[in-house]
Amino acid sequence: MSEVIFPRLTIIGPGLIGGSIARAARVFGGIAGEITVSSRSQKTLDRVRELGFADIIEPSPAKAAEGADCVILCTPVGTYAALAEAIAPSLKPGAVISDVGSTKQSVIRDIGPFVPAGIHFVPAHPMAGTEFSGPDSGFAELFQGRWSLLTPPPGTDEAAIQKIEALWQKTGAQTARMDAAHHDRVLAIVSHLPHLIAFTICGTADDLADETRQEVLQFAATGFRDFTRIAASDPEMWRDIFQANKDAVLEMLARFSEDAQAMARAIRWGDTAYIEDKIIRSRKIRQSLIDLKQA
Amino acid sequence: MSEVIFPRLTIIGPGLIGGSIARAARVFGGIAGEITVSSRSQKTLDRVRELGFADIIEPSPAKAAEGADCVILCTPVGTYAALAEAIAPSLKPGAVISDVGSTKQSVIRDIGPFVPAGIHFVPAHPMAGTEFSGPDSGFAELFQGRWSLLTPPPGTDEAAIQKIEALWQKTGAQTARMDAAHHDRVLAIVSHLPHLIAFTICGTADDLADETRQEVLQFAATGFRDFTRIAASDPEMWRDIFQANKDAVLEMLARFSEDAQAMARAIRWGDTAYIEDKIIRSRKIRQSLIDLKQA
Repeated sequence: MSEVIFPRLTIIGPGLIGGSIARAARVFGGIAGEITVSSRSQKTLDRVRELGFADIIEPSPAKAAEGADCVILCTPVGTYAALAEAIAPSLKPGAVISDVGSTKQSVIRDIGPFVPAGIHFVPAHPMAGTEFSGPDSGFAELFQGRWSLLTPPPGTDEAAIQKIEALWQKTGAQTARMDAAHHDRVLAIVSHLPHLIAFTICGTADDLADETRQEVLQFAATGFRDFTRIAASDPEMWRDIFQANKDAVLEMLARFSEDAQAMARAIRWGDTAYIEDKIIRSRKIRQSLIDLKQA
Repeated sequence: MSEVIFPRLTIIGPGLIGGSIARAARVFGGIAGEITVSSRSQKTLDRVRELGFADIIEPSPAKAAEGADCVILCTPVGTYAALAEAIAPSLKPGAVISDVGSTKQSVIRDIGPFVPAGIHFVPAHPMAGTEFSGPDSGFAELFQGRWSLLTPPPGTDEAAIQKIEALWQKTGAQTARMDAAHHDRVLAIVSHLPHLIAFTICGTADDLADETRQEVLQFAATGFRDFTRIAASDPEMWRDIFQANKDAVLEMLARFSEDAQAMARAIRWGDTAYIEDKIIRSRKIRQSLIDLKQA
């Protein structure tokens, strides 16, 4: 076997992200030797066995972490504290713990206290995904051209950080380092608030009278269809994200609500210049994304 | 020439929708014989000439309407009253006026008074589109598998309604008839509110501090990217839609805002059951759309 970053890599939670990391490690060289996968669900483990993207399948997170050079938590962020506590005693000196959670302050708060001396904790967040979830939804190319943001607390072992950076780069992602609090504010506006809004508008539509709702579905135009695609994401994962990034999400929702009220006022009073200006600014943001190849 | 619904068809406003109707009439048989296109913009007319999807190009709407069997208004809805007034004297007896506006009560209010005796007015709304606009953006297949909703006022000539239904069906669309007020409420929730929200959240992001905004763009995750795609739509068109469907849009925004506040409260107080329930309901709506082949 040629040289790899982590001879033994353990993925806890082989869903969209975890399953894609395991597949990428299989498809692209240099990431991992032996891949162990753990899940609390026997059905998921059976499916992983059928799909064949793990060498070892192990229901117990603690056993899955034994002897691993790196353990990556890929479950909803609300499970991280209990998982960290469970795996901590199994970790070998020099091992790296990482994760893929969308909220980084909460992850550092929940995992940090359980990390033993001599073990390195490198929080990471690959900004990739689809509206699908579960072991069948992953694919090796998911991270190509996307960002993976690392938020290592001050004092984190530099060699461990570089190993996690190398892992992500080998999956095809770009990496950047960022302060965890800053990460959480940026993510609140680019990801968490859009999801909250998408979930909400689907509920608003669902609450309309039965007869109208039927037509809402029948005649779903482009706008609403795109919102439901966002809103099809994993419920448990998003429930945890909103809790874990509560302050930033509530702040961004408050800003958005103020702006929506200003738009409502402009519509009510016929301030067409205001409305047009907002739409033109939106188009410019879209153009910026295209220029940055993010669209 | 084989039999066609409208020997002479005039399109006023050869943008995404108007240009797609003209192209569909060229590509699919039985819709129109001679196609006349009018636009207030000489640049647009020059481009239509280059693209070659019209037989006659005429800057004056009144002249473009002369001798037409059908005139379809495809400009922003705010222009309809003036256009109807301009073309009314040119229309020949038995001609059909139609439109493609996203708001139908305003269209009936604005066009209705100018329709001369012996001319038939059949309001229609093809629910198709992309985030692009202008004469280059259209394509013949845009309407295939989509709905075109007709909202003829009571007493409208049945033969004229059937001609417009036949036109849309020949482009590949399904047709349905609906009361204009009901149409406007359904569209407010499935299309107008999602666009208003998308425009607003882009503005909210743009208002963040310069340094953060750069990262908003750099790390735009799936959710935000989808919103900017919706928000890239034509500013003048949407400015007019919000004005023309003011009451329904404000009502739906108020309902949505209440629901967003309820979500905020659930996040603040950790009511995870509430949050999860909302997300699960969103997924069900998504599944319904997939079952209805609208996703």
